[in-house]
Amino acid sequence: MGTLINGAWMLAARPEGKFKPADFQWVEEPVPDLADGQVLVRVIFLSLDPTNRGWANATATYLPPIPLGSVMRGLGLGTVAASRHPGFAPGDYVQGMVGWQAYAVVDGAAVTRFDRQPGVALDAYPAVFSFIGATAYFGLIDIGQPKAGETLVVSGAAGAVGSLVGQIGKILGCRVVGLAGSDEKCAWLTGELGFDAAINYKREPVLRRLRQHCPNGIDVYFENVGGDILDAVLALINHRARISLCGLISQYNEAVPPPGPRFFGNVLLKRARIEGFIILDYAARFPEAFAALGQWVAEGRLRYRTDIVEGLDQAPVAIKRLFDGGNTGKLLIRVSAEPPA
Amino acid sequence: MGTLINGAWMLAARPEGKFKPADFQWVEEPVPDLADGQVLVRVIFLSLDPTNRGWANATATYLPPIPLGSVMRGLGLGTVAASRHPGFAPGDYVQGMVGWQAYAVVDGAAVTRFDRQPGVALDAYPAVFSFIGATAYFGLIDIGQPKAGETLVVSGAAGAVGSLVGQIGKILGCRVVGLAGSDEKCAWLTGELGFDAAINYKREPVLRRLRQHCPNGIDVYFENVGGDILDAVLALINHRARISLCGLISQYNEAVPPPGPRFFGNVLLKRARIEGFIILDYAARFPEAFAALGQWVAEGRLRYRTDIVEGLDQAPVAIKRLFDGGNTGKLLIRVSAEPPA
Repeated sequence: MGTLINGAWMLAARPEGKFKPADFQWVEEPVPDLADGQVLVRVIFLSLDPTNRGWANATATYLPPIPLGSVMRGLGLGTVAASRHPGFAPGDYVQGMVGWQAYAVVDGAAVTRFDRQPGVALDAYPAVFSFIGATAYFGLIDIGQPKAGETLVVSGAAGAVGSLVGQIGKILGCRVVGLAGSDEKCAWLTGELGFDAAINYKREPVLRRLRQHCPNGIDVYFENVGGDILDAVLALINHRARISLCGLISQYNEAVPPPGPRFFGNVLLKRARIEGFIILDYAARFPEAFAALGQWVAEGRLRYRTDIVEGLDQAPVAIKRLFDGGNTGKLLIRVSAEPPA
Repeated sequence: MGTLINGAWMLAARPEGKFKPADFQWVEEPVPDLADGQVLVRVIFLSLDPTNRGWANATATYLPPIPLGSVMRGLGLGTVAASRHPGFAPGDYVQGMVGWQAYAVVDGAAVTRFDRQPGVALDAYPAVFSFIGATAYFGLIDIGQPKAGETLVVSGAAGAVGSLVGQIGKILGCRVVGLAGSDEKCAWLTGELGFDAAINYKREPVLRRLRQHCPNGIDVYFENVGGDILDAVLALINHRARISLCGLISQYNEAVPPPGPRFFGNVLLKRARIEGFIILDYAARFPEAFAALGQWVAEGRLRYRTDIVEGLDQAPVAIKRLFDGGNTGKLLIRVSAEPPA
């Protein structure tokens, strides 16, 4: 590759509490030559996700800790610039664990090739046809098992996953109530996305509003947040309620786990089920999710929004927005320009 | 019935914290005449159970609150003394919601007739062939779904339900670790009942001991207690662990629910499932449980212990033992002598 220079953010320090820019260090180095089986990816979109915070800890989550001094781990999308793997050719689109860098040298097994569908914008892939859409789809349908006529509550509802979950709930015939952190987000949920109600948890009394908006109780809760919101939901669950535990973003910045839900006893009284899932376990079934999501998108029944920050240099600052409620929809970094469609 | 006099404990006050004797009032009244469809039961055994505490609150649990001034609700066993129901004849054995009283006038639908099996002591019925055995059986097998070779942890392991759960776990081929509140109870678990290990949670460091006794982690947890023990278990659960939520006795005396488990986040990371159940929902399937339990008892593979307090007058004092760790096995009040077998 001659003198192609890669720019990358290394994880320089274990974050204490929230990420701060000083936890990352910018490094520029020549792109190494490819070994057999490797692929060079030019990164177009870097995906910033709440789960990135846990990956940066010294202790393992569902993945091993990111070693200090190595490239910050991150999902993303790009095109193949060079390949020594028979399954990839220059120009191919791929998604996978590319890291916070302009060029990623990865084993072919670390990324997945995909064909761009006509009429589908490139940012739909990280926003819908990715871990994000799969998480919403399987977390709601497999774990939450919603039935038409039931009441579904979603926290983090204006986020990448939550906004899809609520819409899938509507498609399946549920009453859908979302929780989000601003009036603008709530207006988006009840307006464009068709939620039945939305609650601004930063401003409104959550338990009282949930009681108003869920007159028949809560059958399914899709949990992205944890903390007080979970407690309010547990106070209102119906018999045999299902709680799909996707994320607990309110806790990711805490060194010591905060106390769990006080209304935990209701899980017993109401014969409810709380079930955690990690979307990696569903990798083999992603095509099933993408087929359904793709049809709903094509029919105009499923909408997505991307919140695109320009430039890889912005990543250490932009990631804080996930935890401050600053983003609506999928938060992405545009690392490089996309090729003409 | 002429001048047959019933003695009964009424619920006189809503308990604050633990039950105290002054929460009950003794009343003696003539037994009323039976109406059509009713049965008069002479109570032999009254069952004292942790769930009784919740029933006495002003707010509903899975049953409506017991009205103040009415007979304290309780399960029990007795014989039919008189019947105006075609399904019952004098001398029949019945179990059901008889209340804290010597004679119960109940609708036929409120009690279940059973035949005494040869060689089975009468106290085996409240201790095993009742809600107790059904709770252990379905709570472990249906909700916990243990597989041979897995590690099962049981809290309240020397209690009526827990002691059966651990033994069923052994029968199914699990490694079984129990938590109980005295060295004597622990010795009973690892001795006569065949548990692989037992932990005295009042004296030993629970997390450290669980780590020692569960070298392969925890796959199934049968929860009777809640609080710190649940937290220690959550810290050690394996992928796809199942937590069968049967009881939370550590919380029943609290006016304000205490905080839930701090290691709740592990439910997410480990893709675990917490599921509550109420054994009433399984009523139609009790014969399935009793058949299996009966065979295991007959084969000498399942043992039970009853802790029998003599005399209905003792009920208001004896019930405190459930919450002080005073009982081993099924706590019963002997209300009247049993007929010759």
